[in-house]
Amino acid sequence: MSINLRKKKAESAALEAGVDALLVTHLPDVRWLCGFTGSSAALVLCAGEAKGSKANKRAVLFTDGRYTAQAKAEAVGSEVIIATKSPLLAACEWIATAGVKRCGFDQTQTTVADLAAMQKAVPSKLRKSLFVALEPLVAKLREIKDADEIAKLRAAAALGCKLFDHILSYMQPGMTEVAVAAELEHRARLAGAEAMSFQTIVASGERSSLPHGHATLAKLPRRGFVTLDFGVLLDGYCSDMTRTVHMGRATSEERNAYDAVLEAQEAGVTAVRSGVTTGDVDEATRSVLRRAGLAEWFTHSTGHGVGLEIHESPRLATKQTQKLKTGMIVTIEPGIYMPGRFGLRIEDTVLVTRSGCEILTPSPKAWIEL
Amino acid sequence: MSINLRKKKAESAALEAGVDALLVTHLPDVRWLCGFTGSSAALVLCAGEAKGSKANKRAVLFTDGRYTAQAKAEAVGSEVIIATKSPLLAACEWIATAGVKRCGFDQTQTTVADLAAMQKAVPSKLRKSLFVALEPLVAKLREIKDADEIAKLRAAAALGCKLFDHILSYMQPGMTEVAVAAELEHRARLAGAEAMSFQTIVASGERSSLPHGHATLAKLPRRGFVTLDFGVLLDGYCSDMTRTVHMGRATSEERNAYDAVLEAQEAGVTAVRSGVTTGDVDEATRSVLRRAGLAEWFTHSTGHGVGLEIHESPRLATKQTQKLKTGMIVTIEPGIYMPGRFGLRIEDTVLVTRSGCEILTPSPKAWIEL
Repeated sequence: MSINLRKKKAESAALEAGVDALLVTHLPDVRWLCGFTGSSAALVLCAGEAKGSKANKRAVLFTDGRYTAQAKAEAVGSEVIIATKSPLLAACEWIATAGVKRCGFDQTQTTVADLAAMQKAVPSKLRKSLFVALEPLVAKLREIKDADEIAKLRAAAALGCKLFDHILSYMQPGMTEVAVAAELEHRARLAGAEAMSFQTIVASGERSSLPHGHATLAKLPRRGFVTLDFGVLLDGYCSDMTRTVHMGRATSEERNAYDAVLEAQEAGVTAVRSGVTTGDVDEATRSVLRRAGLAEWFTHSTGHGVGLEIHESPRLATKQTQKLKTGMIVTIEPGIYMPGRFGLRIEDTVLVTRSGCEILTPSPKAWIEL
Repeated sequence: MSINLRKKKAESAALEAGVDALLVTHLPDVRWLCGFTGSSAALVLCAGEAKGSKANKRAVLFTDGRYTAQAKAEAVGSEVIIATKSPLLAACEWIATAGVKRCGFDQTQTTVADLAAMQKAVPSKLRKSLFVALEPLVAKLREIKDADEIAKLRAAAALGCKLFDHILSYMQPGMTEVAVAAELEHRARLAGAEAMSFQTIVASGERSSLPHGHATLAKLPRRGFVTLDFGVLLDGYCSDMTRTVHMGRATSEERNAYDAVLEAQEAGVTAVRSGVTTGDVDEATRSVLRRAGLAEWFTHSTGHGVGLEIHESPRLATKQTQKLKTGMIVTIEPGIYMPGRFGLRIEDTVLVTRSGCEILTPSPKAWIEL
């Protein structure tokens, strides 16, 4: 049902972009449009309505022999063709014979080599005109989550919160970062996660100053920050949240830094609503840290979309002019990182609504000392 | 040390390909050439020796502000530049001003959009001549593992075997596939793995007929096959192995199928040695299954290279003419999949030597009934 609507939206977007078909190869786009979850796929979506064209309104999924049963079970609204060569090339040959005039492809997901192979797979007279490089059109549609996706992202985020709850009672000074990550990941798996949505970050003590400090054999300190940034993959959808807790008593500098980042994060959340630019949300977090004299240590952007992929459009970064829309799901995650000293980050995933946003990761953000 | 040698090899390959510099953006290639493990990077490797050129023999890593400390710590043999824009564009601007004449890029790792952005980032007079599309040159060098890599791949494979050993004593009828995967993954993590190298496959009963049957909530049967295909990521390197065990007593058809796949797998291993084509190794496994009347159910290729990535060059597939070389590490993994009935696969990772190969995954392959 939602798949049909998604296909219709993609067809309209294709026609608007001046093409009568789309060749979709980015796997999350394929999954979104037809439900297939395999690792080898090319989907052709025909939007044209030319009389007598055999391509009209057809959706054809090309995959390989490993996925015969799976493709038929999953891609219920699409025809399935098992390619004996590469699915991409089989798709191109089909496109050329089905009467497609102009076939759009996502130029951010198609390599220079793929394009050359695509052109080589069709008759030479079509080579120049058939394939049309487009901006990411399906990724753009995927920015707005439908009800089914919101439910899945909500469930993934809720599982994240449950894991955070558990890990608070598990963490002890002297335990390795990896032991913390292992416990989190094991619980996630037992609770139904297919995998983690990215490599778990457990960055403790001085390592908290690494924005991407993956868990190591470093031991949790008696006194110092521990940043936990993790996400699950549940039913295909990603969760993403960060909390920073303090082991033992903090210095006043640490405490002040935490308060500033928390204020920045809450300002970001408050700034979110349909119609606001992503740049304005970034500025909302950044300006708080600027006033606190900490902006130079905030070395990344404020957030990103989350869905089938852990990093999706839109980006929430300085000077971005894209507007948030109802149904987008984005992270708000300011942080500061003082090399060789300490760092911290606080991150929620939120659903954009008309009047503001709903926080999908409502775990406590107030100061926690363990 | 090995990094220096790798850079030298890449420089020679670049000069041979007619370029005086390489722009490397595929992250495993970047890691292999300079040691940097971050998620945002572009590496420029200058091979030219033109007099007075400021680019001569320099290796410059571009990354972003999140990786300031990490890049300096990891990329010891390279200069590090923290880009305020995208690392790729910063790299292109540097290339244009450093006097590079022809800069090669991997056309299988560069999107159509990236190439357009690269060309836009340099002065218009350089636009046509500066960037040269090349076949994967670093990936090609990465086919042959050096001593450091062999040690790491050996350790990863050994951990895989240890996990298989453990899981045999853990599996019980009625337990979910996910519970088996969770146990395997938790043990992997506690033993030092950063992550799994791909989504764990636990395919039981009828699901064993899915070549890529990721673990689900399906329960291990009292009687039937369970295929376990899993790998760890240890110190950046992947392991990959598959074993199929039988719960309870098998039918003679199941037992015969197992014997045929095992014979095929062993024939593949026996065929491996430096100088043999990958197509011949594929034919060695396939011909055994053909004689057993099972070849139609062997719906994928025989194997692939393993290293920093789970699937690397070379491919071991029908009619491939590439020759194996000493130091390659590849999988040998024939399997059969009878939709709606059962399937099984047996896979080793092996190191190609002059006279044959060394099996890095020596877990038992003889029939196991649990």
